[in-house]
Amino acid sequence: MIRPIIKIISVTIFILSCCSLLFASDPLANNAGLIAANSRAIDLVWMLLAAFLVFLMQAGFAMVETGFTRAKNAVNIMMKNLMDFSIGTLGYFAIGFALMFGADKLGLFGFSDFFLRAVDPNTVDGSWQLGFLLFQTVFAATAATIVSGAMAERTQFKSYLFYSIFITALIYPIVGHWIWGGGWLSKIGMIDFAGSTVVHSVGGWAALVGASLLGARIGKYDKRGASKPIPGHNIPLASLGVFILWFGWFGFNAGSTTAGTSLSIAAIAVTTNLAAAAGALVSMFVVWKQFGKPDVSMALNGALAGLVAITAGCANVSPLSAIIIGGIAGIFVVFSIEFIDKILKIDDPVGAISVHGVCGAFGTLAVGVFAEAKYGGVDGLLSGGGLSLLKTQFIGVFSVLLWVVATSFIVFFLANKFIGLRVSREEELRGLDIGEHGMESYSGFQIFSNH
Amino acid sequence: MIRPIIKIISVTIFILSCCSLLFASDPLANNAGLIAANSRAIDLVWMLLAAFLVFLMQAGFAMVETGFTRAKNAVNIMMKNLMDFSIGTLGYFAIGFALMFGADKLGLFGFSDFFLRAVDPNTVDGSWQLGFLLFQTVFAATAATIVSGAMAERTQFKSYLFYSIFITALIYPIVGHWIWGGGWLSKIGMIDFAGSTVVHSVGGWAALVGASLLGARIGKYDKRGASKPIPGHNIPLASLGVFILWFGWFGFNAGSTTAGTSLSIAAIAVTTNLAAAAGALVSMFVVWKQFGKPDVSMALNGALAGLVAITAGCANVSPLSAIIIGGIAGIFVVFSIEFIDKILKIDDPVGAISVHGVCGAFGTLAVGVFAEAKYGGVDGLLSGGGLSLLKTQFIGVFSVLLWVVATSFIVFFLANKFIGLRVSREEELRGLDIGEHGMESYSGFQIFSNH
Amino acid sequence: MIRPIIKIISVTIFILSCCSLLFASDPLANNAGLIAANSRAIDLVWMLLAAFLVFLMQAGFAMVETGFTRAKNAVNIMMKNLMDFSIGTLGYFAIGFALMFGADKLGLFGFSDFFLRAVDPNTVDGSWQLGFLLFQTVFAATAATIVSGAMAERTQFKSYLFYSIFITALIYPIVGHWIWGGGWLSKIGMIDFAGSTVVHSVGGWAALVGASLLGARIGKYDKRGASKPIPGHNIPLASLGVFILWFGWFGFNAGSTTAGTSLSIAAIAVTTNLAAAAGALVSMFVVWKQFGKPDVSMALNGALAGLVAITAGCANVSPLSAIIIGGIAGIFVVFSIEFIDKILKIDDPVGAISVHGVCGAFGTLAVGVFAEAKYGGVDGLLSGGGLSLLKTQFIGVFSVLLWVVATSFIVFFLANKFIGLRVSREEELRGLDIGEHGMESYSGFQIFSNH
Repeated sequence: MIRPIIKIISVTIFILSCCSLLFASDPLANNAGLIAANSRAIDLVWMLLAAFLVFLMQAGFAMVETGFTRAKNAVNIMMKNLMDFSIGTLGYFAIGFALMFGADKLGLFGFSDFFLRAVDPNTVDGSWQLGFLLFQTVFAATAATIVSGAMAERTQFKSYLFYSIFITALIYPIVGHWIWGGGWLSKIGMIDFAGSTVVHSVGGWAALVGASLLGARIGKYDKRGASKPIPGHNIPLASLGVFILWFGWFGFNAGSTTAGTSLSIAAIAVTTNLAAAAGALVSMFVVWKQFGKPDVSMALNGALAGLVAITAGCANVSPLSAIIIGGIAGIFVVFSIEFIDKILKIDDPVGAISVHGVCGAFGTLAVGVFAEAKYGGVDGLLSGGGLSLLKTQFIGVFSVLLWVVATSFIVFFLANKFIGLRVSREEELRGLDIGEHGMESYSGFQIFSNH
Repeated sequence: MIRPIIKIISVTIFILSCCSLLFASDPLANNAGLIAANSRAIDLVWMLLAAFLVFLMQAGFAMVETGFTRAKNAVNIMMKNLMDFSIGTLGYFAIGFALMFGADKLGLFGFSDFFLRAVDPNTVDGSWQLGFLLFQTVFAATAATIVSGAMAERTQFKSYLFYSIFITALIYPIVGHWIWGGGWLSKIGMIDFAGSTVVHSVGGWAALVGASLLGARIGKYDKRGASKPIPGHNIPLASLGVFILWFGWFGFNAGSTTAGTSLSIAAIAVTTNLAAAAGALVSMFVVWKQFGKPDVSMALNGALAGLVAITAGCANVSPLSAIIIGGIAGIFVVFSIEFIDKILKIDDPVGAISVHGVCGAFGTLAVGVFAEAKYGGVDGLLSGGGLSLLKTQFIGVFSVLLWVVATSFIVFFLANKFIGLRVSREEELRGLDIGEHGMESYSGFQIFSNH
Repeated sequence: MIRPIIKIISVTIFILSCCSLLFASDPLANNAGLIAANSRAIDLVWMLLAAFLVFLMQAGFAMVETGFTRAKNAVNIMMKNLMDFSIGTLGYFAIGFALMFGADKLGLFGFSDFFLRAVDPNTVDGSWQLGFLLFQTVFAATAATIVSGAMAERTQFKSYLFYSIFITALIYPIVGHWIWGGGWLSKIGMIDFAGSTVVHSVGGWAALVGASLLGARIGKYDKRGASKPIPGHNIPLASLGVFILWFGWFGFNAGSTTAGTSLSIAAIAVTTNLAAAAGALVSMFVVWKQFGKPDVSMALNGALAGLVAITAGCANVSPLSAIIIGGIAGIFVVFSIEFIDKILKIDDPVGAISVHGVCGAFGTLAVGVFAEAKYGGVDGLLSGGGLSLLKTQFIGVFSVLLWVVATSFIVFFLANKFIGLRVSREEELRGLDIGEHGMESYSGFQIFSNH
């Protein structure tokens, strides 16, 4: 027989249940216990499957980033995405989870459950804890991987590894504790259901700091400072990446109930999908109007902008509000990408700062405007809840911005000092694939040298 | 702690349950209610996860279409696939769902529930309605996206957007109402479990009309009218697309129970998988015999043909019948592609008319032959049910053909008149990526100019 | 029959429920039946969704294999991966399942349930059987597809089809019977929870035999026998493949409970993820140290090595042990690939022998060392269980090695004699895409002739 031990345990449980059915002094209570066990199983199955979907977002981010950049750096991008997840998995397991969900200290951080050593996997509660660890791990890795895109094509691989440790084990978990782990922002009632701020803005603001410190890629700005487009080398891969991200986002948002028995999972999936669709459409039309052609990279970023923006309020707003939020994000992302590229002159190859940072902040604030008690129990400005929620959301957005900018500045500063943040000019021109990893991405293909 | 509202609600429910166990005047009925809630949660979790899988089929269609066509049109194909889903999501939410599942008018269309405004997300029923909306949205978008492949490499993007609105908001929902929404075909007993006709034939017949009106791509037929192959530019992507479609099809077919508590979900997954395998194998052997080599694009289309054909009867036929249906579809698709290409001289770059239209019709009729009461409660011809079911299926297939050909003709005629269906000769030769979207798909790669 | 105790209990419960439905003077027992039905539904939903994820691993294997090899053979690789799954689906349905899970004969093989003809889809039990068939089918196809990579770029397509029949219908099911189907290895207590040996080593050892008999690709070894790298043509695709495999592996391992109500699904998902992360990281550092640069193909193989190694013990070891097992596999895979390539001079283009054969064997043995009763009920060496489990594991690993080497040698010997195992020199140089399938993978792209 396979899996004998599991079997024995199951059999024992079953026999005990049966016995209790036959002989129990209280079979009614016994039934209630079995019903509760089923409910918890539904919750666990849902949370785990959602975690698997969110895991796959790593592939989505990798495809988007590589598709929107040049062929000579694709190996490096694959390595960064593989490694930030691997480092994130280990770092979050060892330290991050404890800082985020451990026993609260002063509302600022958690401090217990390192390595989840105390968890008993044979209990319903222990099993749920382990599932929750996996779910939170894939979220932490998402925050980390967002930064990769903004720093693409010029960052030393060692420095990227160094930074990955800190964001998944320290910077992100602290924010997570504030908002999801019982910290001070959760105490004042901030709503960020699936992490527009916790995950996306954290990644986006760290990306802002990293890209600013790095400087632009060679050739991105001409002598007079005018921005020049550096086209991506594989739009089908980038598009596949966006479809995969959209797919994974259903797990990201609807999975954030961490309960399949929650009635809100369907509404969340619907708002998520509507916001993404609205974001893609609106972005396309804005760009079409502005530049005369419907640009695919802006439309793809529009879908992501809609997804990022609805993430905070996906359980708190109506489907119609989701369309509005997604649509506004679709406008914001276009102008934000233009602004960062042409006015701030920060070189963000994939638009990560705008998509995740700006739209994450917007989406979090939008909860304060569009929240309806009918959906998530709290009313925002438009439903008669006044300005109170919006203020709280603003405090949250602003505090996280400060924390992430300060800490990621220190991390990148240290990386720059002790490792070196940027590759050499020669390496950048030749490509990081050869320079950092000693191989090419597309062996055999004829690729123009200046790309 | 995180997600306080959900928590509060859960805790409240839990406390109420506990209280009811202690003090309830009827704890037995209370248990029954909790059991039913678990059943509905299993159903909702299943339906939502299936919807997510079907969503991912958009990526599959995009990869198949782009892989089977030329590099110079890949951006355009990505945009079409992204946009038909985005438009479909919004159009189906606003209008399509109401026409399909609203209160029946004369057996012809539904008319209520626009924007699902009346749905209360806090009830089991409202939650299920929202999940059902998402499930049906991804189906509607599938019907839309099928057309894209047959019209690839020469259609004006604006016209494609125009058409997408009509198929998802009007043409498809009416068929859906007839067969799934309580309309006249459902009343006479037509069986199309997961949509060989509702989804695939609708897409396939619209593709037939669109491709016919457009005319062939430049260079597809020589001066004497002989068909010349235009090879696809990325077979690994096309293959990945087929694997993703196959994966998503498990959600498409088994998810169409819309209930995880349905006993038939396993049988459906098995028949789906067997038909796909048989389709791929048989197509490969037919082509091998006919042309001397096992062609990969035909084998891939064979798998899809098997999947399309089993979609109508996946819950009504035995595993052995599924192999036969898939195998026959694998033969049909080869000859249909040849026939449409060489005899009808309609240029369908990816074989969408054959795969979805022809095999969808075949699969729907096959239910009339192979259905067994043991599986879906109804006997077809071979199980002693006589010709009655087959006749009904034929009426359904034929009516849908008429409706779709007529309406899609009008839509494409209007698109052609007011927007223009086809791009200019210059744009077609240079590629729609530059012409419609102002960018290339594979920047940096050396690509032959005549492709 | 498989899992007889579970079956008997379920059946009993079901009969009891039915009885209670018929005679129900006892609504309490009726509730118990409904609760049991919910539990079974949760199990079936979980098993099916896991099967779908494992199905998608076919796409992962296809992408990894094609990405790590040359552009001129990509069509052939797609066809092999499509066809081994299609053949596997049909062969395993007809014969393989019966040999694996049919009524045991002498502990050596099963013999009943061919075509699962006796299954009644309308019963809870029949439904579960069909779901279990699908789950086992995707496992069988995984074993088959592993071989493809090691034999890439030089194997006749016909011979590959021939071999695929035997591994999925005969070689694999016999091993499966020994360990999972009630055969002699299961009787002596061997633990291989999700198939480090049953699936991965079977594939790996068949790959070893196949690659040895085939000989190296032209140009792989120079005149003095020194190994020369043949770089892969599409690293982003290979990386996407690894992400997809990692994603599917959650279904592979956690799904192997075949029960969503099992408390261990969360612990399994966690150990799986940690081992993969550790494998990737450690492999990267080992290669970095050895060759001076962090090589992406080794890091990707390291992730797979960790996944393969944890597969046997994913339900029996602690999270910390999973990190150790994954990390050791990450070391082993690097040295094994080097050893097979440079010392044994066997040309394995993707490292399949090392990843699946060697790390599969290691992972199975590691259960004897790291197993903890707290997780799976049995203690290994380090938890005070003595050497007994380790010995059993060794017997299992060694017996499977002998069986697979012997039988796959016969199959490849016959294929070579009657079909021909290797393509002609001309075809190999030009590429199998043209030679075997009459088409190219990347039409329009300029690709260097020597690739």
